[in-house]
Amino acid sequence: MEKGNNVTPWEVSGEVDYNKLVKEFGVEKIDSKLLARIKKYSSQLPPQLRRNVFFAHRDFNWLLDEYEKGNKFFLYTGRGPSGPVHIGHLGTWIFTKWLQDTFDVDLWFQFTDDEKFWFKNKPMEEIHKWMYENMLDVIALGFKPGKTHFIIDTKHAELMYPIAVKFADKINFSTVKSAFGFTNDYSIGQIFYTSMQAVPAVIPSELKGKNIPCLIPMAIDQDPHFRVARDVYPKLGYYKPALIEGLLLPPLTGTDGKMGSSESDTAVLTTDTPEMVKKKINKYAFSGGRDTLEEHRKLGGNPDVDISFQYLRILFEDDDKKLDKIEKDYRSGKLLSGELKAILIEKVNAFLKVHQVNREKAKKDIDKFIYKR
Amino acid sequence: MEKGNNVTPWEVSGEVDYNKLVKEFGVEKIDSKLLARIKKYSSQLPPQLRRNVFFAHRDFNWLLDEYEKGNKFFLYTGRGPSGPVHIGHLGTWIFTKWLQDTFDVDLWFQFTDDEKFWFKNKPMEEIHKWMYENMLDVIALGFKPGKTHFIIDTKHAELMYPIAVKFADKINFSTVKSAFGFTNDYSIGQIFYTSMQAVPAVIPSELKGKNIPCLIPMAIDQDPHFRVARDVYPKLGYYKPALIEGLLLPPLTGTDGKMGSSESDTAVLTTDTPEMVKKKINKYAFSGGRDTLEEHRKLGGNPDVDISFQYLRILFEDDDKKLDKIEKDYRSGKLLSGELKAILIEKVNAFLKVHQVNREKAKKDIDKFIYKR
Repeated sequence: MEKGNNVTPWEVSGEVDYNKLVKEFGVEKIDSKLLARIKKYSSQLPPQLRRNVFFAHRDFNWLLDEYEKGNKFFLYTGRGPSGPVHIGHLGTWIFTKWLQDTFDVDLWFQFTDDEKFWFKNKPMEEIHKWMYENMLDVIALGFKPGKTHFIIDTKHAELMYPIAVKFADKINFSTVKSAFGFTNDYSIGQIFYTSMQAVPAVIPSELKGKNIPCLIPMAIDQDPHFRVARDVYPKLGYYKPALIEGLLLPPLTGTDGKMGSSESDTAVLTTDTPEMVKKKINKYAFSGGRDTLEEHRKLGGNPDVDISFQYLRILFEDDDKKLDKIEKDYRSGKLLSGELKAILIEKVNAFLKVHQVNREKAKKDIDKFIYKR
Repeated sequence: MEKGNNVTPWEVSGEVDYNKLVKEFGVEKIDSKLLARIKKYSSQLPPQLRRNVFFAHRDFNWLLDEYEKGNKFFLYTGRGPSGPVHIGHLGTWIFTKWLQDTFDVDLWFQFTDDEKFWFKNKPMEEIHKWMYENMLDVIALGFKPGKTHFIIDTKHAELMYPIAVKFADKINFSTVKSAFGFTNDYSIGQIFYTSMQAVPAVIPSELKGKNIPCLIPMAIDQDPHFRVARDVYPKLGYYKPALIEGLLLPPLTGTDGKMGSSESDTAVLTTDTPEMVKKKINKYAFSGGRDTLEEHRKLGGNPDVDISFQYLRILFEDDDKKLDKIEKDYRSGKLLSGELKAILIEKVNAFLKVHQVNREKAKKDIDKFIYKR
């Protein structure tokens, strides 16, 4: 398969060529000027911005213009609850929390149970079981109750469906066919779905009866939904939401982007024990190291394709100096693959120790997060 | 246009050939044996059955088998609230009321505001204004409060959308394309809609947690929705609903089946004054009479195409003997077109006098009819 040739919200095949995506999707790269502008609001940019993990945007400058005029935005992101959360899912949410804290804004968090029912061929009961589990992970990250509103497509349908009806009116089959690669065999649910994903970006505007800017932090594979919907928002009298788009987190098994059904067995789940984390990373984390110790010492490893290094870069090593040293030592051959994995294992287990305590505490807080009219 | 060639829920063109429809749609004709069976439950069959206005069905014998075993059914019908109710709309509802009274069953009455928004290109506010007006007409016909439940697609979305999601999963674009004649230019709302129309047939089963038979009285143009959905009900563990299907009521201007945008000007509305009724029928009711008095006296009129006669037959002259005499006198030339129209005008005005009083009273009762969980 050609590089970056197939990225939709439901399928990512081949090694993703982000430069090509930026061009194809028509998004803007986040440049140093925009980073400098964002830095005015925070003592330190998060690793997701410092290291180009979130690398593209639409209308982010407009959003900050409005913010500076006193027209505060809100955040919207979401989760398709079809299985357990693994550590790769956390990057976007941790970045979203940074945005919430930095700009002191509300977050609307959508759980797309209808989408997963239509696209994953699982019973709704199973999807709702995972949804509950996934909510614990989101809450455990420390989002502010009272400022964070969970909405569930089927359970909040009285709020969402009437708005989705208006979006669905302005999008035809030709459009979703070309944006998502649908054929006539796709279900009328799958065809309709994108109108539900458009909705949370206008819920606060609907509730307050006035236009409120929206920022959507998300992985770039979700861009087609908003490429379609952003044409519709102004037709319905709303602002186009601004987007900030991040890399797809590679699975443990490598950067080829495939998300196989066995992923839950090979991915590090947020509920894994320290032993499981150690075993999975040692067994499955794709290595950029050389085949033999001698070769590695002589030629060095390749951190660009090494999943352990990438996870440290994207998520688990906040300290730039430490990360630089790890990269340098790995490239030079001083640091071995097993040693690099050991660093990641320690970091992940330290993170999960706290996360799992917070996850348990979250069980009594779920009700505070689910939106009530 | 060929006879009966184009009948979908949104378009009826040409003179409808009901025999062809029966064959194409694969419904069964209501025969004398079935009529005799229905007659066991009522001292007198209503004109809609005696005169073959409701002429086709699916699984009606199964429904009565279940009823006789003590497995009571419920009724489901509906209204797309895109404009005022005219007298032609009342036939199905009056027949539905007869079914409710005769079998002492609940009725779920759906108002498809989403459908009309998608297919009629009118603002939702206008549709909701008409919905309120249409509800008054339904209530005025005497449906039992407490046994009659109004559901509105957008306002009851929390009940309906999660069920629609399951239907939408089992229907693909190819299917709706061929059932409704959709093209790629149709909106994803229009494509999704049929799954919302499938829902009310299972709401009581969902609420009670057990399968309850359903009977849908409706005009035959709605059949494509259920032709599609009836394949899905058993896949989701529900009974297929039984259907009883009636003629499309011809507009005042003639039996060619066209429902033009000017219909509200030419049709007799339930809110019209006696003078307006008189004027509209005299001016617009298509006549089967001859061009001159002499010809008419000599050759007689044709009641089969005469709209005044058809309205008497279908809706306003309950007495078979009186109707027979009117038909005979019209065919012989004894009864003139103007005289026939005068009979209809008197009947319609007598009906509307009562209806309009009931319609006023209904304003305070709407809340009793709207379903509450």
